[in-house]
Amino acid sequence: MLIFNLMTEKEKMKYAEMTQAQLQSELEIQKKLYEKFKSQNLKLDMSRGKPDSEQLSLSDPMLTALDSGEKCVYDGFDMRNYGILDGIPAAKQMLADMLEVPSENIIVCGNSSLNIMYDMIVKSLIYGVSAESTPWIKQGNIKFLCPAPGYDRHFSICQSLGIEMITVPMRSDGPDMDIIEELVSSDPLIKGIWCVPKYSNPTGITYSDEVVRRFARLKPAADDFRIFWDNAYAVHDLYEEGDKLLDIVNEAISAGNPDIVYEFTSTSKITFPGSGISCLAASQHNLNYIRSIMTVQTIGFDKLNMLRHVLFFKDISGIKKQMEKHAQLLRPKFDAVISAFESELRGCDIAEWTHPRGGYFISLENKYGSASKVWRLMSECGVKMTEAGATFPYKKDPNDSNLRIAPTYPPIDELRAAVEVLVCCIKIAALEKLILN
Amino acid sequence: MLIFNLMTEKEKMKYAEMTQAQLQSELEIQKKLYEKFKSQNLKLDMSRGKPDSEQLSLSDPMLTALDSGEKCVYDGFDMRNYGILDGIPAAKQMLADMLEVPSENIIVCGNSSLNIMYDMIVKSLIYGVSAESTPWIKQGNIKFLCPAPGYDRHFSICQSLGIEMITVPMRSDGPDMDIIEELVSSDPLIKGIWCVPKYSNPTGITYSDEVVRRFARLKPAADDFRIFWDNAYAVHDLYEEGDKLLDIVNEAISAGNPDIVYEFTSTSKITFPGSGISCLAASQHNLNYIRSIMTVQTIGFDKLNMLRHVLFFKDISGIKKQMEKHAQLLRPKFDAVISAFESELRGCDIAEWTHPRGGYFISLENKYGSASKVWRLMSECGVKMTEAGATFPYKKDPNDSNLRIAPTYPPIDELRAAVEVLVCCIKIAALEKLILN
Repeated sequence: MLIFNLMTEKEKMKYAEMTQAQLQSELEIQKKLYEKFKSQNLKLDMSRGKPDSEQLSLSDPMLTALDSGEKCVYDGFDMRNYGILDGIPAAKQMLADMLEVPSENIIVCGNSSLNIMYDMIVKSLIYGVSAESTPWIKQGNIKFLCPAPGYDRHFSICQSLGIEMITVPMRSDGPDMDIIEELVSSDPLIKGIWCVPKYSNPTGITYSDEVVRRFARLKPAADDFRIFWDNAYAVHDLYEEGDKLLDIVNEAISAGNPDIVYEFTSTSKITFPGSGISCLAASQHNLNYIRSIMTVQTIGFDKLNMLRHVLFFKDISGIKKQMEKHAQLLRPKFDAVISAFESELRGCDIAEWTHPRGGYFISLENKYGSASKVWRLMSECGVKMTEAGATFPYKKDPNDSNLRIAPTYPPIDELRAAVEVLVCCIKIAALEKLILN
Repeated sequence: MLIFNLMTEKEKMKYAEMTQAQLQSELEIQKKLYEKFKSQNLKLDMSRGKPDSEQLSLSDPMLTALDSGEKCVYDGFDMRNYGILDGIPAAKQMLADMLEVPSENIIVCGNSSLNIMYDMIVKSLIYGVSAESTPWIKQGNIKFLCPAPGYDRHFSICQSLGIEMITVPMRSDGPDMDIIEELVSSDPLIKGIWCVPKYSNPTGITYSDEVVRRFARLKPAADDFRIFWDNAYAVHDLYEEGDKLLDIVNEAISAGNPDIVYEFTSTSKITFPGSGISCLAASQHNLNYIRSIMTVQTIGFDKLNMLRHVLFFKDISGIKKQMEKHAQLLRPKFDAVISAFESELRGCDIAEWTHPRGGYFISLENKYGSASKVWRLMSECGVKMTEAGATFPYKKDPNDSNLRIAPTYPPIDELRAAVEVLVCCIKIAALEKLILN
């Protein structure tokens, strides 16, 4: 550890203020360190927002929450059989309480909220957003606004379906609303926007009340414009006092704009990813229309899994207790990453990072545009990260600065090891930018 | 019961051979009987192919087959977490054995095979059936062939998506292949055909080997033509000696036509409808393409439910044992309907019915084109049946003759009661056609 300690002494100096000779010497030190890491044949993964196995075990009792045929009869209905297209009432209520919307504004779906989002776009393309509107596919080259850095899988959906993406900058209180209002009011081909409003993926910020209200009051040129509100981290607080997000479904109703938003969430990171339940919250008018198509699409979603969740949690307070347990496991991991950044990078002034109070990601900005270089160095050293650029439409980060760090999955020792490598790679990449050839 | 016994004496005479006076007198008898039924305020349901609660209970042990976190780790993978896009290997193997195809030709999906079928059509519309082909939606007014009587939900998918339906007659060994070969070879806008090849919905027949081979060897004018092979009743035999269906996936490979077919099945009527697992079987080329879109659509399907099925059944022999138990419960119900028809209708020569050896339905042909009248009479008497016409595209039965009977859901006493009413309604409707005004 000697070499590491020596280094931290040096780091009190900003890299930008170093002479070329100092930069060269620092680069040599970091490269030696890097070679040491490389020789360890690491195999670490900070790439995706996955719960670790301790988190998964929190939900093991749910596996037996529904353990007899008798228990499958609930509210007078045998959930083992066909029927109930849009979700069992008790699950609607629980998820409604989670999103703080009335349960009549909820449809409970299958195991993947991403799949509902994809499906809602496909429905809008083929059928239009309402019985009265024209299918998007018949309206020419439609576009989506994409606040970025954002969630790569949202962008992949647009790209796959041939929807043009327009990048909108993210601020600390949400996306830039001036730009959004300007764009949607002038271009009727802009049909939607992607939002992760709470503990945003990847920046971890939560939209301010003012931003939510401006969304709810949007007056788009397209009357079939929809906000895709992916509230994936609605209850995923890391600290007792979580961020507060204003509920957009109610705000949109109050603003006389009830149909403008589709809200999504799931229990993927509450119970079991891939075996959770998901839901869509929207206006009655939207939901009636959606049900009219759903009835052709499927006979219904997995009601036994809905019931399993209901029996396990009882109600929203059960979910909140579960989330406190998740937080206890996750806080040390977030702390480990952030404290390493603070002690190793703060003085160098070569990067900035977020301090999220919830969610699954830490976002890191490389001041000298070296994100892809960092990613390559990490990869060559056996540490997997979300690819540089992935947080932007078309995977093109205009400044090549953003990296998404997913600290949840690796055990804490491995995470610490991975962050040591990361710090070293960030330094090397910055130094190489600063050194004149 | 006296009146009923008197009646059966009369029925030895064919209605067509009765004088007008005899017909009138028979009508009076039947109408009296009908009024008696009506006064009972019945509430019976023979409308949908749902298992009854005894059948559902057969799968109750599956609820606890996956009862600990440790058991969720299977083949070295923690099924509680994200990952594995196209189904867990053990579930692939089990469903492959059920369809008698290699497991590499299988993708395991969510709780609804209907939903996969819908989704495969949507994919073909938006993306095309392969990376090289043109999306169906860009090719004008595309069409599907619909052997009829057939499954109403297949037809609803086409109707919802604006795909023109062409009715093809059903024979006792499958749909009319001469007509199909003629149509698909001449019209490149015909893009698909719906098939329920085993214990066909609703006629209960199984396609002959020759029909399957002719399907596998089809040479459509459209190179993006696909057979939608809904093998919903693959293992749903009522008798020890079940019908044998030739496997089309292998036949299509042998015929040098590997990409022509998508085969679907699910465990909806093996375990729990709505909480089963489903799969798609197709050529490697098709599956690779489908996976490339699936990866945008979803992070994956419910692996814990797949594993629950694997642990419950162990392998295909477990499924077969389960199906024998289902058969024991279902045989008396099919027998009750058919023996009532035999004793009450055979002599009258006003209807024909199928004697399925598996599946979920009995199909009834009203000789004098009175199916919608029968349905109305049943409905007014409190007995729900699948609507007349539902088994045809656009709900239009050209002869107004077909009725689908679903004997599985009601308890046997209720089923017997419902069939008594049905026999009476069939007679009234036929008599009213035969009586000259």
